[in-house]
Amino acid sequence: MDHHFTGRSTDHDAIGCELHSLIEELYPICRSITGDGFRKTMQVLQRYIPLELHEVPTGTRVFDWTVPKEWNIKDAWVKDGEGVKVIDFQESNLHVVNYSIPAHETLKLEDLRGRLFTLPEHPEWIPYRTSYYTENWGFCLRHDDYLRLEDGEYEVFIDSSLTEGSLTYGELFLEGREESDVLVSCHACHPSLCNDNLSGVTLAALLARQMCEEPRRYSYRFLFIPGTIGAITWLALNEDKASRVRHGLVLAGLGDPGGITYKKSRRGDATIDRVVAHVLRGLGRDQAVLDFDPYGYDERQYCSPGFDLPVGRLSRTPYGTYPEYHTSADDLSFVSPTRLGESYRALVGIFSRLERNQKYLNTNPRCEPQLGRRGLYSSAGKSVKALLWVLSLSDGLHDLLDIAQRSGLEFESIHEAAVRLLGAGLLSPEEGRQDGS
Amino acid sequence: MDHHFTGRSTDHDAIGCELHSLIEELYPICRSITGDGFRKTMQVLQRYIPLELHEVPTGTRVFDWTVPKEWNIKDAWVKDGEGVKVIDFQESNLHVVNYSIPAHETLKLEDLRGRLFTLPEHPEWIPYRTSYYTENWGFCLRHDDYLRLEDGEYEVFIDSSLTEGSLTYGELFLEGREESDVLVSCHACHPSLCNDNLSGVTLAALLARQMCEEPRRYSYRFLFIPGTIGAITWLALNEDKASRVRHGLVLAGLGDPGGITYKKSRRGDATIDRVVAHVLRGLGRDQAVLDFDPYGYDERQYCSPGFDLPVGRLSRTPYGTYPEYHTSADDLSFVSPTRLGESYRALVGIFSRLERNQKYLNTNPRCEPQLGRRGLYSSAGKSVKALLWVLSLSDGLHDLLDIAQRSGLEFESIHEAAVRLLGAGLLSPEEGRQDGS
Amino acid sequence: MDHHFTGRSTDHDAIGCELHSLIEELYPICRSITGDGFRKTMQVLQRYIPLELHEVPTGTRVFDWTVPKEWNIKDAWVKDGEGVKVIDFQESNLHVVNYSIPAHETLKLEDLRGRLFTLPEHPEWIPYRTSYYTENWGFCLRHDDYLRLEDGEYEVFIDSSLTEGSLTYGELFLEGREESDVLVSCHACHPSLCNDNLSGVTLAALLARQMCEEPRRYSYRFLFIPGTIGAITWLALNEDKASRVRHGLVLAGLGDPGGITYKKSRRGDATIDRVVAHVLRGLGRDQAVLDFDPYGYDERQYCSPGFDLPVGRLSRTPYGTYPEYHTSADDLSFVSPTRLGESYRALVGIFSRLERNQKYLNTNPRCEPQLGRRGLYSSAGKSVKALLWVLSLSDGLHDLLDIAQRSGLEFESIHEAAVRLLGAGLLSPEEGRQDGS
Repeated sequence: MDHHFTGRSTDHDAIGCELHSLIEELYPICRSITGDGFRKTMQVLQRYIPLELHEVPTGTRVFDWTVPKEWNIKDAWVKDGEGVKVIDFQESNLHVVNYSIPAHETLKLEDLRGRLFTLPEHPEWIPYRTSYYTENWGFCLRHDDYLRLEDGEYEVFIDSSLTEGSLTYGELFLEGREESDVLVSCHACHPSLCNDNLSGVTLAALLARQMCEEPRRYSYRFLFIPGTIGAITWLALNEDKASRVRHGLVLAGLGDPGGITYKKSRRGDATIDRVVAHVLRGLGRDQAVLDFDPYGYDERQYCSPGFDLPVGRLSRTPYGTYPEYHTSADDLSFVSPTRLGESYRALVGIFSRLERNQKYLNTNPRCEPQLGRRGLYSSAGKSVKALLWVLSLSDGLHDLLDIAQRSGLEFESIHEAAVRLLGAGLLSPEEGRQDGS
Repeated sequence: MDHHFTGRSTDHDAIGCELHSLIEELYPICRSITGDGFRKTMQVLQRYIPLELHEVPTGTRVFDWTVPKEWNIKDAWVKDGEGVKVIDFQESNLHVVNYSIPAHETLKLEDLRGRLFTLPEHPEWIPYRTSYYTENWGFCLRHDDYLRLEDGEYEVFIDSSLTEGSLTYGELFLEGREESDVLVSCHACHPSLCNDNLSGVTLAALLARQMCEEPRRYSYRFLFIPGTIGAITWLALNEDKASRVRHGLVLAGLGDPGGITYKKSRRGDATIDRVVAHVLRGLGRDQAVLDFDPYGYDERQYCSPGFDLPVGRLSRTPYGTYPEYHTSADDLSFVSPTRLGESYRALVGIFSRLERNQKYLNTNPRCEPQLGRRGLYSSAGKSVKALLWVLSLSDGLHDLLDIAQRSGLEFESIHEAAVRLLGAGLLSPEEGRQDGS
Repeated sequence: MDHHFTGRSTDHDAIGCELHSLIEELYPICRSITGDGFRKTMQVLQRYIPLELHEVPTGTRVFDWTVPKEWNIKDAWVKDGEGVKVIDFQESNLHVVNYSIPAHETLKLEDLRGRLFTLPEHPEWIPYRTSYYTENWGFCLRHDDYLRLEDGEYEVFIDSSLTEGSLTYGELFLEGREESDVLVSCHACHPSLCNDNLSGVTLAALLARQMCEEPRRYSYRFLFIPGTIGAITWLALNEDKASRVRHGLVLAGLGDPGGITYKKSRRGDATIDRVVAHVLRGLGRDQAVLDFDPYGYDERQYCSPGFDLPVGRLSRTPYGTYPEYHTSADDLSFVSPTRLGESYRALVGIFSRLERNQKYLNTNPRCEPQLGRRGLYSSAGKSVKALLWVLSLSDGLHDLLDIAQRSGLEFESIHEAAVRLLGAGLLSPEEGRQDGS
């Protein structure tokens, strides 16, 4: 019973700093949904966990989609008439529209303008732009710099390639006692953006590292994938694995200063939804639980009606609602060791409860068992209440979380009561439906 | 998909005036639950719609009831001792208790008093009284006039007949693409009373006229019947037709100055209940949705437990709660073109939504379809949200109205998204349960 | 239909006084979970009702428990060095820890202290203590007296016996028309404590007396048992009878000055839960309905998951929440004739409604029956409403209590309407599920 993931060994202060350092290392890499930047990122993670890399060739049909050509980039710049670089990929990889095709030409400013993207409302920030499914090129720059551009001719150079290749993703499967899987998924395709989603990537990696070291009830599958196309590709090629998913979380945007928010799975009342809501309630006022909606990150795919997997999303401030979102302001200063550590602690709380949450059967369901002669009655009143609640509701219909909520007692007390009753032979695990779903 | 009733061609200002003019024409006719007044009313409506008239003979058993004798009246009066008419049917047909048997006698005032009905609290108004199932006679008059009656003898004359004949009702069936019917029923048996129910009668007639001109998904059955006995008669003689009713509305009291109220069907959560509640919410603060109760108009019969049809009632101020109810004050000034036009617009809103409300199946339910390559992603954000919501919830369990409510988006946006997705082959109608019930 | 328990003949003022007198008579007896005090109590009740006494031998296995040895006591005291009785069982039987083994020895005060129990926060009261399942002895006394004890030697004498014997309980079965039982259970094992539970014992006895005199729809089973072990014993030896229980109440603590509280059965929505909640609502503001929890009196056993009987608990102030609980202050002045009479009236209200609550079938479910020709329409409007509600909802799914709640009408009006409709042949009892469960 007690052989489950607990996360107890974690030093939450230290883990926050370690997460931030890892983000710092990954930050400069120019990632995209395919290409060497993604691969390099996975290689860094392999120092922490035995991540398996998969390569899916360009052109592979994945449901309604096709794996795109692979994109790589070495350099890019725009020079003014005097040969001075006014935009330079080496300064920030956000300067190039992600997936820009190769280009080398000279244009007048008025012709170049249509290729330039800025944020007039935040003139100091570089926006993040992509053009995955339409072959095109362009540059992103600070609006302040844009205003300084003078009429004349500009030389444009993009040393990129868009060729037959493959889509890369990283996968780590940790076998548990049960043949039921917990899916932990994060998109790892964004270039130099920290909250979105180096925070999710590093949290998933270090959580996986800790899970390797502890016994597990569930099997865990960690996915580090390019957003949208990666989730679709994995689902299309792994329908058998998808069918084993009993609970899941998408991790994204977990280092910013806001409170933690959970977006429920499409089902709305899955065990993962109840567990996360319970944990967040315990964390206090700043947390929020949101209903499912069909836009967002990769939960869109996991929760599509043909799969309808019980997968929710854990974030801090929801994407798109903070000004730094998809801009150069989502940098190393936007994510803090404190918030990252806090998010890690919440994940440990969620998974340690999920592992322990279960339905049991009272083996002595007719009248109360005599607790006294088993030494169970000597304990304090609150503890006896927990024992009685667990006995009363262990009828195969209620899991420990249900019992905690109905009794108003802590999940920890209820779980402890269940452990003691199991030890006394007064409870048995419910076979066949052990996941509480 | 788009071949459904829309009501788009209606000029709502003009229709209010047309409704009021038609009420004006029908107002003087002395109607009852049987007889020539009812027939004459139907003949006027036949100028607008191809109404079929049915005659059910006196004595026909209809469930627990029997079709009564037919009542007709030519004239009636009370003369004082000097031969002056103090009460005169020609002035208002409300003066005679409806269904009064023939009478011609002379009585002292004290003997006559028991036959006279007034409204002391509204001394200027003539009450409306009936005696359908007890053979009797009497007069209704203004309380002011009643007080002016002097002692002495009065000659009473009622030139009526109560004989074997038939009960008349009008029926119009408009076939639609589906073999599911929408029932629209109104009682047409009241004499010179405008709100109750020339408003319902004329609205049903002109709505039917418009429906004749448009394609329809549902088949529509309009009933113009005498209250209670008419509904019972139709149900008893048309059980096969009753079983085809998927949605229905009783129309009554729709011209008075109050807000629109909807009384739910006995089921309480029928599609018609959800559609009307949705439309009324859109109309703002003055509208109300009431729970079912087993008294009222002909919804009593349609919702009796042996039928339990999904039929609600649309009214403005509920019957019996306004002082003009069942008095001569329910006259041409009590109903206005504005309110009649407003009620017409609400009906168009209800039926156009009902026609479009449907369950669909996402034909590509595993992961999202690639909207971009179908030109569906170029549109504004709100429109994409509607597309994603429709795709996510089109699992055979949710109709468009459910999707509108869960997403918080307008029904129109959701319907438009469904049309676009159908056009792109990403949605198919759910066969066999197209009515959303 | 009308042959059911009504309680109409009760004089509620007189019954309150009679209950209090009976409590007065039973108060001095030293009861315990076994022994002659319990038997003597049952013998007093046999003057009122034909109670059957059962003796279950020591050592009998009852589920997880064993019937304990029988305990009897004649006398007990503590004398100081001068032979003066400083604690005397003859003054109050609470002075001895209930189930104390025999003792006769002389100890120093410091050695005696561990055997003495007081209530420092209520120095004038003697606490009530038991040691049923651990062989031990001790005394309870006023804290004031405890403080007056001087150093020195004390002679302790307990003239008790703990021997092979039996557990006694009283049972009264009153057969009704239906083979469905109502269980009324009270614990009768406490010594000189009035509210807990001579109030429950005497209410059960006098209610049973009245039930003997009236026709009954249900069969009633009254149990006067020792707490916990008595309920477990009865359930273990009478599983066939337990399976006949359709509704039940545990009566405990019904004479104190607080409002009436009802604790729901584990099911939470059993008919008894709905009926009691309905009756308490009618009694006004001081009453409360509490959710089930798995601690309390014998409802713990009846509601254990292997039985899950629909048994709730009726009390006034819940046990353990008033300071007099389990102390000598729970005496004859703590319970009043007024409150006892009030509790009796509530019980009559509950059982008379329970007896009348039933599901019926409208025998004329298609359209309304013609009430007028059956003389049912002449009555006042409210009465017609009740008739229509009963007709509308008598579809086999709703009992009269449901109809009362949905219509907002009184249960009495709804029941009266059902009686009239039954008389007119418009309603028939629903066979096979007559208990509304």
